[in-house]
Amino acid sequence: MKVVLLSGGVGGARFARGVQDVLEPGDLTVVGNVGDDVEVLGLYISPDLDSILYTLADLADEERGWGREGDSWVTLASAAAWGGENWFSLGDLDLGLHLVRTNALRTGSSLSEVTGRMAEHAGIRTRILPATDDRLRTHLETPAGSFPFQEWFVARGHRDEVDAVRFEGAEGATPGPGVLDALGAAEAILIAPSNPYVSIGPILAVEAIRGALDARRVRSVAVSPLVGGKAVRGPADRMLSRMAGGTTPRHVTDRYKGLIDALVIDEADAPATAPVELVATHTLMHDRDAARRLAEVALEAACA
Amino acid sequence: MKVVLLSGGVGGARFARGVQDVLEPGDLTVVGNVGDDVEVLGLYISPDLDSILYTLADLADEERGWGREGDSWVTLASAAAWGGENWFSLGDLDLGLHLVRTNALRTGSSLSEVTGRMAEHAGIRTRILPATDDRLRTHLETPAGSFPFQEWFVARGHRDEVDAVRFEGAEGATPGPGVLDALGAAEAILIAPSNPYVSIGPILAVEAIRGALDARRVRSVAVSPLVGGKAVRGPADRMLSRMAGGTTPRHVTDRYKGLIDALVIDEADAPATAPVELVATHTLMHDRDAARRLAEVALEAACA
Repeated sequence: MKVVLLSGGVGGARFARGVQDVLEPGDLTVVGNVGDDVEVLGLYISPDLDSILYTLADLADEERGWGREGDSWVTLASAAAWGGENWFSLGDLDLGLHLVRTNALRTGSSLSEVTGRMAEHAGIRTRILPATDDRLRTHLETPAGSFPFQEWFVARGHRDEVDAVRFEGAEGATPGPGVLDALGAAEAILIAPSNPYVSIGPILAVEAIRGALDARRVRSVAVSPLVGGKAVRGPADRMLSRMAGGTTPRHVTDRYKGLIDALVIDEADAPATAPVELVATHTLMHDRDAARRLAEVALEAACA
Repeated sequence: MKVVLLSGGVGGARFARGVQDVLEPGDLTVVGNVGDDVEVLGLYISPDLDSILYTLADLADEERGWGREGDSWVTLASAAAWGGENWFSLGDLDLGLHLVRTNALRTGSSLSEVTGRMAEHAGIRTRILPATDDRLRTHLETPAGSFPFQEWFVARGHRDEVDAVRFEGAEGATPGPGVLDALGAAEAILIAPSNPYVSIGPILAVEAIRGALDARRVRSVAVSPLVGGKAVRGPADRMLSRMAGGTTPRHVTDRYKGLIDALVIDEADAPATAPVELVATHTLMHDRDAARRLAEVALEAACA
C-alpha cells in the first residue's frame, strides 16, 4: 500500500517510523518540512529532514529527542573557542552529515538529490523528499518582533507568543521532484502528529502540494499532536490557543480544512465533534511499538 | 629585535616557537606558506598556517607532528559514512577552526584577517601572516603525472619522485597585507628549516616577497632542514637529490641564491663549503629547549 506522509521533525519522525514498520519496505514516502532549515557556521542544516532520516535509520537519540545517539560536541566547542557561533547545537556525528550535504549543495546538487543519497547511505527504503528544493523559510510574528524560525525556537526558546506565521519564499515555490508523483500514486495520505503551523504549515504553503491534497482521490488522515489539549512537546498548544482560539480536535481539523477526511485524536480529547471523522486512540508514542500501533490506526482510518 | 621568519609547517612551526621563546612578545612575524592549502569537504584547510598557529599556541600534537593534541575523529568518520571524502585527516578539534575560517572566508574576510583573528583567539602575540591572500597552489611534476600538493603528499604519500615544482597563481600574486611592511621593518630575516621547494618555495614565488629579500638591508639566515644529508621528515632530501643533484649545504644555499647571508647547518653536515657563511650546530629540535637554542644560533648569525 503506497502511502505519502507529510511530516515535521521529532514527533513526525517517530510516527514515520511507525508507518514504515507497518508497510512493505519502499511503500512509504515522507514529505518533510524545510521551513526550519538554517545555516549555522556556514553549514546547511535541515533539522526536520535529519530527524526523519536519523529516526528511520535508528540513529536518533530517542531520549534527547533530537540529534544522533551517542553524539559528542568536540567540534562545536572548538569552533566556539575560535569565535564561531554555538547557539545551535551540532554534535560531531551530526556534523558529518551537515558537511557532506553542504558540500554537495555547494557543488550543484539539489536538496532532494542529497537527501536521497543520504537515505541510501543509511540503508533506508523509505523515500524522504523535501517539500521543496526552493528556499522556503518560516518566520514568526510575535509581540517582540518578527523572527526566523530557529531564532525564535532555539535562540529564544520559543518563549514569544505567536500572532502569525509567514513562509518566506512560499510564493512560487515548487514541490520537490517526486512529491507530486508520490501524492498522485498514493493509496493513502497521512499527516503526522506535528505542529500544524510550523511543521505541516510550510509543506502546505507550497501551493501545488496543497492543491494535490485538495484534489486527492484517496483518503487523507491527520494525527493530532495534542493529548488532552496539550502538545506532547513544543508550542503547538500555545499557538492553537492564541491563533485559533482553542485546542480541541475541531481547532486542529480547522488547520487542515478540505485537506483531511479524518483526524486521529487521543482518547483524552474524546468525545469531541469536528467536521471530519474523529478516531480516538492512545496517541502517545512511548516506544516504537506504540508508534506502530498509532500508524495502524491511522492507516485503518485511511482505508475506511 | 624585530624578526621576520619565513616558514612552512611542522619543522618550521617548531622553529618559530623557538624564535618566539627567544624574542620579546610581539617582535616576531611569521610569514607562512599557503601553497599547501586545500579544500576538503568544502572546508578551507591551510595546513602550514594551522601548524604554526597550533604550535605557537601550544595546541599542537607534538608526537604525531600535525593537528591538535588530544583530538578525535568522530566527525570525519561520520562524514565518510555519509559518502564524504576522508583521505585528508581532520580531527574534531581541528574542524572547529576550519569551520570558523571557511565561514569567515565565504562571508568576505580575507585569509590574513581570519588568520589574525585566530591568533588573537589563541592569545598569540606573534603575528602570523599568509604569504599571500591570493590563490597560490603548489603542483608537483612527477613521472606519474602532475599533482596538486596534497594529492601528491597525502593521498599518494609523496612516493612519486619530483621533477619540477610549479606554483599555480604565483604570477600576479601579491604579498598578504603586512608582509612587505614587516620585511621592511625587520632587523633580521630568518628562513625556517622547512622544505626549500614546497614550503619556502611558494613564499618566494610571490615576486614582491622575493624582491624584498633580494633588496634587504639586514642579514638573512636560513636553517637547513637536513641532518647528515637526510631530511628530518618529509621528502626534502629526495627532492634535492633529484632536482639539485645532492644534499650538501651548498645544495641548500643554492635554493636561496642571493636571498641569505648565512646557513645554519647540522654538525653532521660540517665541514662544508658554500657561497655564504655556514654555522654548524645541533639542529635537531628534540624539544622546545632545543628549538630555542637553534633559534639563538640563527639569530646570532643574523646579528653577526
